[in-house]
Amino acid sequence: MKKIVSIALLMVISLVNAQSVPSPSKNISLDFKLSSDGKPTYSVNYKNQSIVKESTLAILLKGLPALDANFRIDSIGHHKINETWQPVLGEQSNIKNNYNQMTVALSQPSTKRKINIIFRVFDEGVAFRYEFPKQEKLNYFIISDEKSQFNLTGNHKTFWIPGDYDSQEYAYNETNISEIDNSKLDLNNGIGVKSIASSFRVQSPLMMKSSDGIYINIFEAAVINYPLMHLDVDTKNFALSSNLVPNALGDKAYLQTPCVSPWRTIMVSEDARDIVGSKMILNLNEPCKIDDTSFIKPMKYVGVWWEMHVGKSTWDYAGSQNAQNAADGSLKPSGKHGATTENTKRYIDFAAKNGFDGVLVEGWNVGWEDWFGNWKEEVFDFTTPYPDYNLKEVNDYAKSKGIKMIMHHETSGSVANYERHLDRALNLMKEYGYPAAKSGYVGRIIPRGEFHDGQTMVNHFNFVARRFADYKLMVNSHESSRPTGYSRTYPNYIAAEAARGNEFNAWSVGNPPMHETILPFTRLLGGPMDYTPGIFEIKMSYYDKTKTEQVHTTLAKQLALYLTMYSPLQMAADLPENYERYPDAFQFIKDVAVDWQDSKYLEAEPGDYLTVARKEKNGERWFLGAITDENARKTELKLNFLTPNKKYKAIIYQDGKTADWKTNPINYEIKTIEVTSKSIIKLSLANGGGTAISFQPIN
Amino acid sequence: MKKIVSIALLMVISLVNAQSVPSPSKNISLDFKLSSDGKPTYSVNYKNQSIVKESTLAILLKGLPALDANFRIDSIGHHKINETWQPVLGEQSNIKNNYNQMTVALSQPSTKRKINIIFRVFDEGVAFRYEFPKQEKLNYFIISDEKSQFNLTGNHKTFWIPGDYDSQEYAYNETNISEIDNSKLDLNNGIGVKSIASSFRVQSPLMMKSSDGIYINIFEAAVINYPLMHLDVDTKNFALSSNLVPNALGDKAYLQTPCVSPWRTIMVSEDARDIVGSKMILNLNEPCKIDDTSFIKPMKYVGVWWEMHVGKSTWDYAGSQNAQNAADGSLKPSGKHGATTENTKRYIDFAAKNGFDGVLVEGWNVGWEDWFGNWKEEVFDFTTPYPDYNLKEVNDYAKSKGIKMIMHHETSGSVANYERHLDRALNLMKEYGYPAAKSGYVGRIIPRGEFHDGQTMVNHFNFVARRFADYKLMVNSHESSRPTGYSRTYPNYIAAEAARGNEFNAWSVGNPPMHETILPFTRLLGGPMDYTPGIFEIKMSYYDKTKTEQVHTTLAKQLALYLTMYSPLQMAADLPENYERYPDAFQFIKDVAVDWQDSKYLEAEPGDYLTVARKEKNGERWFLGAITDENARKTELKLNFLTPNKKYKAIIYQDGKTADWKTNPINYEIKTIEVTSKSIIKLSLANGGGTAISFQPIN
Repeated sequence: MKKIVSIALLMVISLVNAQSVPSPSKNISLDFKLSSDGKPTYSVNYKNQSIVKESTLAILLKGLPALDANFRIDSIGHHKINETWQPVLGEQSNIKNNYNQMTVALSQPSTKRKINIIFRVFDEGVAFRYEFPKQEKLNYFIISDEKSQFNLTGNHKTFWIPGDYDSQEYAYNETNISEIDNSKLDLNNGIGVKSIASSFRVQSPLMMKSSDGIYINIFEAAVINYPLMHLDVDTKNFALSSNLVPNALGDKAYLQTPCVSPWRTIMVSEDARDIVGSKMILNLNEPCKIDDTSFIKPMKYVGVWWEMHVGKSTWDYAGSQNAQNAADGSLKPSGKHGATTENTKRYIDFAAKNGFDGVLVEGWNVGWEDWFGNWKEEVFDFTTPYPDYNLKEVNDYAKSKGIKMIMHHETSGSVANYERHLDRALNLMKEYGYPAAKSGYVGRIIPRGEFHDGQTMVNHFNFVARRFADYKLMVNSHESSRPTGYSRTYPNYIAAEAARGNEFNAWSVGNPPMHETILPFTRLLGGPMDYTPGIFEIKMSYYDKTKTEQVHTTLAKQLALYLTMYSPLQMAADLPENYERYPDAFQFIKDVAVDWQDSKYLEAEPGDYLTVARKEKNGERWFLGAITDENARKTELKLNFLTPNKKYKAIIYQDGKTADWKTNPINYEIKTIEVTSKSIIKLSLANGGGTAISFQPIN
Repeated sequence: MKKIVSIALLMVISLVNAQSVPSPSKNISLDFKLSSDGKPTYSVNYKNQSIVKESTLAILLKGLPALDANFRIDSIGHHKINETWQPVLGEQSNIKNNYNQMTVALSQPSTKRKINIIFRVFDEGVAFRYEFPKQEKLNYFIISDEKSQFNLTGNHKTFWIPGDYDSQEYAYNETNISEIDNSKLDLNNGIGVKSIASSFRVQSPLMMKSSDGIYINIFEAAVINYPLMHLDVDTKNFALSSNLVPNALGDKAYLQTPCVSPWRTIMVSEDARDIVGSKMILNLNEPCKIDDTSFIKPMKYVGVWWEMHVGKSTWDYAGSQNAQNAADGSLKPSGKHGATTENTKRYIDFAAKNGFDGVLVEGWNVGWEDWFGNWKEEVFDFTTPYPDYNLKEVNDYAKSKGIKMIMHHETSGSVANYERHLDRALNLMKEYGYPAAKSGYVGRIIPRGEFHDGQTMVNHFNFVARRFADYKLMVNSHESSRPTGYSRTYPNYIAAEAARGNEFNAWSVGNPPMHETILPFTRLLGGPMDYTPGIFEIKMSYYDKTKTEQVHTTLAKQLALYLTMYSPLQMAADLPENYERYPDAFQFIKDVAVDWQDSKYLEAEPGDYLTVARKEKNGERWFLGAITDENARKTELKLNFLTPNKKYKAIIYQDGKTADWKTNPINYEIKTIEVTSKSIIKLSLANGGGTAISFQPIN
C-alpha cells in the first residue's frame, strides 16, 4: 500500500512541476519545469520547433544562500490580457497588448525564502521576470548575480556589439555565434571610454537569425532600479547567460522586497517584420505616470552642432577642437566658437523660415575648455553661459520667431555634479522657456567606479526623466545606457542616443552602410533614437581636402532615415548653408512628420534592408522610407496601406542613376507621380542608398 | 685640479641640501634635509630636544613613478607672517597668526616633475604641506598614497581612537604608543557603522605626552579636495605615518595641478594650555570667503531630540524606537511621535520664556519608519513633513514668539540623495525662515564604497557649507568627518559633531568621565563641536527603572561643559520639564554666552582636567568652566583675568558635598560671592565633577 501512495504522489508532483503557456496565436509556447533538484527551468518553442532549450533561472544573493535550486512550487497562476493603449507620441496611435501570463510561485524550504517567476507569452515572443514578494526572510538584499540562461539551438547568425559596460556606440558585427570574440575587434573606432571585461560578452538587444530562417531577438524591458543585462556567450554550446553590470564593489543590485527584476525577452518569428515592428518592450513597461502630458510634443530641430563635428567651429570658447587646450581656465576667445549669439540667431532664422520647431545649441556654457578625458568632477554648472552667448537675447529672438530653444547639458560623465546642479539647471530652462534639453554623458562616470550601465546610472537616467517631468520638460539623453521602454512610463524622455549615431561618420571610421538596417532590430526596440540624420554634404573632404571621413550612405538614404529610424524628435543635422544648396531634397525634411497614427513595416531583413510606411498623426499624409546596406537593391512595393479610393501625389526622393554611398553619394533624383492604394511602385536603391517618399492626398 | 672642483661642488650641495627654520620664539626648530638618494626629510626640535626624528615625505601616484626620491632642490624661499585677524564667531575677537615659512622647491630630473614642500613654524608647532605646481608633466593625477612620516622619539602616552574610516564616535584610549592595538578594543560601544581596516591605525588629532612632560599633537588643517589622514602606527619604533582614506577603487585623491595637500601639523609644548588654546589649525585655513557674514549668529537652542534618546518619544511617526518597524511604508501613528506641532509649540514656549534663540526638531519629516542600517538610497526628501507636523503653523508660532526654528536634515549616509534634494531643502528653509540646519550622516555612505572620511565626503561637507552660504544659512553637521578648520573660511559651518557626543550616554556604555577633558585637545582643534551638554537628569533610570545607562558626569560638570566645549552653537539638551525642576541650576545655561572676545585656559591636562575662563563678545561678563575626570580635584584659581578695579558678582555652580558622577550626580550647590581681579577662589570638583561660574560686573 505504501508503495502505491508514493507513486501517486510522484505523479501529482510531476504534473504540477511542468506547465506550458501558449501565445494567443498558439505559434509560441513557453514551458516551465522544476528540475529534479528543484531548479527553475524554461524552454521556448516556435511552431513546434525548439528555440530556447531547457534553461535554468537563478538569482545569487550577497551573503545569503543562492536562489537557484531546491525550490518547490507553491502555486501556478494564469491570466490573459488583451487591451489597447494610446502612447503620447509613437509609431502608431493605438498599441495592442495581448499576452497569456503564468506566475509560478516558488519557495525554498531550506531558507524559507520565496520568489515568483512571471512569464508572459505574446504572439511575437516570450518575457519573464523575477518577483521578490515581501516576506519575513527577505527584506533588504543585494544581488551578486543573476544567472538567466538562454540555451539556443544552433549556431545562429548574430548582429552583435561587445558587452561594454560604458558604451554601446559600436558598429555591429555580423557573425555566427561561434565567431563572437571581442578580442578580435579593431577598437580604433572613435569611442572615448571603453570597458570590455570579457572577450565573450555581448550586448542586448541581440538580433539573430537561425540557419532555417527564424529570427530571434534577446533583450530586456523595464530596467528600473536594476543594472542593464549583458550576455555571456558560450560559443561552443550556443548558450547565452545574463551578465549584470556591477558597481565599484562588484555588487549588482541593491533591492528591497517587494520588488521585481526587469523582463527578459525572447522575440521569435519567421518574419523579421514582426520583430522590428514589435511593441512588446513598450507593452512590458508601466503605463504613463505623467498626468498632464500636454507639454510633450514632437519636434523637428536644427542646431549648432554638426559644424563642430566637421571642424568648422568649436564647442569651447577659448580653443580649438582640442578640449585640453586651455586647462589654466583662461578664457581668451579663439574666434572659432560655434555657440555665439550671432550664429545662434542665424540658425533661428533658418529654423523659422523652414518650419522647424527648435534650435539646439551645444557649447553655450562655460566648461568646455577642459572637460574631457580626465575624470574631472566639477566641469559644468549648467547655468553659466560663455561671454559671447547671451541667454536672454537668444531666447527673446527665438520667441519672436516662434522657435523653441533646446538646452544642452553635457555632464562629461560627472553625474554627481549634474545631480547637484539639476534643479538649478531646470529652473534656468523654465526661466527662459526651454521646452527640452539634450543631455550628454561622455566620459567615465563619477561617482567613480560606476559604469554607464550599472544600477546607479539606470536610476540616474530614470530620475532625470522624472525630474524633467516635474518641470514639464522633455529630455533627450546621449551616451546614456540603452533604453528599455521607460519612455512609455515617462514619455517626456522623448529620445536617447545610446547607440552609434550619425556623428561617428564625421570623425571616425564611421558607421558602415548596414548600420542603420540593424538599429531598428536592436537599439530602437527600447525607445526612440536621436540618430541625427539628414547629412547632405556626405564627405568631410568638403570641409577639408585632407579628410577621408564620410557618411556611409547616399543623400537619399539620409532622407529615408527619417522614417526608418523612428523618433518623435528628429534633427536636420547638417548646416543651414548646406541645405540651402539642395532646396529640392531639403523639402522632404521640411515635409516629413515625426509623430504617427500608423506604421507599416513593408520589408525587413536585419543587416540588409528595411522599408517602412507611416501615416502622420493628425493628417492624411503618408511617408515611406526604404534603405539598403552596401548592396544596391531593387524592389516593388504595393501601396495598399494608402486609404482606398483616394489619390495621392507621391514625391519620390531616390538615388540617382550613378549614386553610390562611396563614389557618388550626393547623386539623387526627385520625381512626382500620382498613386492610389492599388498602385505598385518600383524602387531602385543604390549601394548604401535609400528612397524617401511623401504621399500627399490630392483633394 | 679636477678633484678640487668636485669637492667644492659637493660642499655647496650639502650646504643647500639642509636648511633650518626656527619658530618666532626660537623654541621650535624645523630642519629640512634631502637624503643622499634625494628623499625629502624633516625633523622637529623643541628647546633643543628632538620631537620628530628624521622623517621622510613622499607622494605616490597611480600609474606614474612615485614622488618619493631622486629629487634635487631647485630653490628654497623664506618668509615671515605676523598678523591678526578677526573670526566672525570664536573663542576670541582677535587671532594672532605668526609663523616663519620655508618653501622648498624640488624637482625630480628622471620624470621632469616638480613638487614644493612648504613648512610653517609657529610658536606652538610646525606645519607642512605638499604643493603641486602647474607643470607640463603633471596635470591630472591620482594620489595612490601619501607617505608622510612622523618618527617620534619615545613611547609616549597617547589618547587615541581607532583609525575608523567611517566614525570617530569613540571614547579615547589612554595608553603608551606600544600598546596601541585596535584588535583589543571592546567595540560594543553604540557606534552603528565601523570600518577599521588595521589594528595599528589611529585617528588624528593624536594627543600625546612624553615621559618628560612634553605635549605633542599630530593633526592636519585645511583638508579640502583630499581625504582625511589617519595614522599608521609602528608600535615598536614609535613611528607614525600618514594613511589616506581610500575610495571604492582604492584611490586616495583625484587632483589637478596647481593644487596643494592639506597641512600636516605637529604641535609641541611643555605647557598643555598652549595646545588646547592654539589657533594654529584655524590659521592654516583660508580667510573667510563669505562677503556678508551678518547672517552668521551664535545660537543657544533647545530641541525635540533628547526625549527620543531617552525613549520618551520617537523620531518616526508610525512606530517605536525601532526604525524597521514599518518597512511596508504604512503610516499609522503610534502616538509616541516626538515632532508634533503641539509638542514643538511647547518647546517654543519654553525657549521664548527662557531666552533661547532656537528650537531644533528632529523626526519632522517622512522617512524615519525605515531609514537605518540597510544602505537604502532614497529615504528622506527633506521637504515632506509627517501628517502631525504643520510646517507653517510651527514656524508662524515660533515667529510670534521671537524664536528661530532649526531645520533637521538626516541623510542616513545617502549623500547622493541629499545632494539631489539639497536646493529644494534649502529653498524650503528660506520659505519658512529657518536660519540653520542640523545635518546627520548615520549609516554607510552612498555612493556605495565611499567612506565618511574619503575625498568625496570631504568635498561633500565642504560643498554643503558653501551651498548653505549661498542661501545665507548655517549648518551643523553630525556624523560628518572631523573638521580641520574650514569654519574659518566658511564660518556659516557653525559647528559639527564628528566625535562621540553626549547622546551616547543615553543608550550605550557612554562617555567615560575623562572624555570631555580630551576632546578640547583633539576634536575641538578643528572647529566647534555640538556636544549637546546640559543634561540634568543624569541617570536613565529616571525614565525607566530597568535602565542602567547614565551620563558620566555630575550636573555641575554639565554646566561647566558650556565653557570647556567651545561652540558658538550650544544646545540645552535636556527636556524642558527637567529644567523646570532645577530652575536655579538652569539659570547658568540661560546666562552663559556662546560667543567670546577672549578666552583664558587656566589649567589643562589632557585626560585629567581643564579650566577655562571666557569673556562674552559684546559685554563685560566672564564665565568659567572647570572639569575633572573620574578623580575629584581641588584647585585654587587666580582671577587675574578679570578687569582690574572692577567688582564682580560671581555665581558659583559647584558639585555638592556628596556629589559623585556615579553615586550622586545631581547633587550641586550654588553660591554667590563678590570678587575682583585680585581674588583667589578655591574649587572643589567631585569625581567626574565640575564647576561653572558666571562673573557679572557690579555697577
